[in-house]
Amino acid sequence: MAICFSSAVKPANHFTVFFNPAPKKPIFKCSCSLPTVTTTEPEPVFTSVKTFAPATVANLGPCFDFLGCAVDGLGDYVSLKVDPSVHPGEVSISEVIGPSKLSKNPLWNCAGIAAISAMKMLGVRSVGLSLSLEKGLPLGSGLGSSAASAAAAAVAVNEMFGNKLLPDELVIAGLESEAKVSGYHADNIAPAIMGGFVLIRSYEPLDLMRLNFPEKKQLLFVLVTPEFEAPTKKMRAALPAEVGMPHHIWNCSQAGALVAAVLNGDPVGLGKALSSDKIVEPKRAPLIPGMEAVKKVAVEAGAYGCTISGAGPTAVAVVDNEEKGKVIGEKMVEAFWKEGNLKAVSMVKRLDRVGARLVGSVPAPR
Amino acid sequence: MAICFSSAVKPANHFTVFFNPAPKKPIFKCSCSLPTVTTTEPEPVFTSVKTFAPATVANLGPCFDFLGCAVDGLGDYVSLKVDPSVHPGEVSISEVIGPSKLSKNPLWNCAGIAAISAMKMLGVRSVGLSLSLEKGLPLGSGLGSSAASAAAAAVAVNEMFGNKLLPDELVIAGLESEAKVSGYHADNIAPAIMGGFVLIRSYEPLDLMRLNFPEKKQLLFVLVTPEFEAPTKKMRAALPAEVGMPHHIWNCSQAGALVAAVLNGDPVGLGKALSSDKIVEPKRAPLIPGMEAVKKVAVEAGAYGCTISGAGPTAVAVVDNEEKGKVIGEKMVEAFWKEGNLKAVSMVKRLDRVGARLVGSVPAPR
Repeated sequence: MAICFSSAVKPANHFTVFFNPAPKKPIFKCSCSLPTVTTTEPEPVFTSVKTFAPATVANLGPCFDFLGCAVDGLGDYVSLKVDPSVHPGEVSISEVIGPSKLSKNPLWNCAGIAAISAMKMLGVRSVGLSLSLEKGLPLGSGLGSSAASAAAAAVAVNEMFGNKLLPDELVIAGLESEAKVSGYHADNIAPAIMGGFVLIRSYEPLDLMRLNFPEKKQLLFVLVTPEFEAPTKKMRAALPAEVGMPHHIWNCSQAGALVAAVLNGDPVGLGKALSSDKIVEPKRAPLIPGMEAVKKVAVEAGAYGCTISGAGPTAVAVVDNEEKGKVIGEKMVEAFWKEGNLKAVSMVKRLDRVGARLVGSVPAPR
Repeated sequence: MAICFSSAVKPANHFTVFFNPAPKKPIFKCSCSLPTVTTTEPEPVFTSVKTFAPATVANLGPCFDFLGCAVDGLGDYVSLKVDPSVHPGEVSISEVIGPSKLSKNPLWNCAGIAAISAMKMLGVRSVGLSLSLEKGLPLGSGLGSSAASAAAAAVAVNEMFGNKLLPDELVIAGLESEAKVSGYHADNIAPAIMGGFVLIRSYEPLDLMRLNFPEKKQLLFVLVTPEFEAPTKKMRAALPAEVGMPHHIWNCSQAGALVAAVLNGDPVGLGKALSSDKIVEPKRAPLIPGMEAVKKVAVEAGAYGCTISGAGPTAVAVVDNEEKGKVIGEKMVEAFWKEGNLKAVSMVKRLDRVGARLVGSVPAPR
């Protein structure tokens, strides 16, 4: 493994909402592999921790593959404890609460892969950990299920050893997991870890921009998930290899408008941009029964915009009022049933501004 | 001509710096043709006015065809006076100070076309005007020369009749001119009229977003113009008809990053995004002798980024310090000579935050 870590590991509080007016210098000079650190091995500051990581909405219409945001009150939990019965430097998965098809082999489980990556980055060699994963998110829903597990696990390891990794480093740990499960893309894992909206500026080196939706402004998402399997690989295969110049210019301008709407705290402008994709959504929506009708109904009912969340099948609409969001959600559920013959459930969730975080801990004895 | 003007004409002070946190509703329901207004014919409030409109930098790397900004202290002047010898409702061009090849026929002159458009929008039928155009910008330099003439003329007419048109309406008047001269694109005319950075969100209906670079932050442009003809049509022909998906995603993400850098007042991030275009600049730069070397030299000398201004041949680099900008400009001039065998001149100019404006007037007798 190449050593490509170019800066000293600095303590950081990743629960702070990071606002990035001047982009940080890239942390890594190369992204050839998982970075390793050669500083003193850290000791656990807790005997056990519990973390939560939120669901995420990636793509956001014209921002395909480079922008995502986190939604509050929906996500996965990871409980992690120091376990003398586990081989030092390794992770064992003791329990997966949720879908039975998830592997308990840490090398094949999103949370396990991310936890191992974070341990390697921290240089943990003398402590074994056991991990329990509680899935709050359905698999393959387009809500960043794998990213939430990975984010919760990476942050749990980091908290366990004194919070020494920077958010970008935690994203790298999570990316190892995403690469094995759904492809090397950071538009779910970055907002799952950092909260809010995160723009992926580049991968080599990894360069992330946290976009700050103003605190005083309301932003809510209506998330409507039908009972339908829309595998990421199939949805990726539907994408065109090339884009005509007029559509390229259009989508670029709408992506710019969406970023401006986020920074200006403008849900109307955000919704309008979200609805405007002429490249990806037109190819994918027909593959999800009823999706086109659901979008139409959402906008007619007063949503500021609507598109597919991630690779689907969840539909996401933007509003700034919870009650209105609930009514819109019901109409979207009806449309999935009427036009797509699919049962669906709806939720109204706020923008998550914090990202993956500690929700419980037991200090290590001194 | 279809009447497609849907709102009453409201007085507006277009010299205000417009900040657009929530996008305005479209003014026009269609953009089929020049809108006509049916309100009472306005009377001139001045016997003569003089206006200035700034140069503009369009495209800005990855923001091809939808984003431009205005630069201060460089542009065109229009002097306009009520002239009883001119047929009522018409414009006569009395003088063009500058390049001799510009027509004095108002139907073939950017300033004339925009002045006539603005008069029609205002419903001026009883007053004839004579116009003098003073070119401060070289033709075909990539600095929005035609847009500056059109903007100065449209604003002069508007000022003459009591400032009744909104900025979006003035842009429509200017677009009539741009369409005849260099193509139906608003990324020069919109910032020439409105100042600052303007994102063209859509044309049908016209929807413009003013992006506010924070007042307290410095932003300067090093503009280096070689003696070389780079006609817009030839530069357009160099563009690819289709864009591969990875390049599309890359440029979209950089466009989003550029918009964020503008709103965050981040010259470093702006320069980085400006330099990042993988679609247009790689096709056009080789057509301008020395351009690739000029960009390299600019960045090596400390510019935050560099690209082609508009369709060229001017190179634009971003800095936040005037003295540093001058040094960088000299090196860019040297590189044009050494690598492209072209003489060039350099200037360092600030972001213009105001746009086209009144610089002199004589009130009408009461």
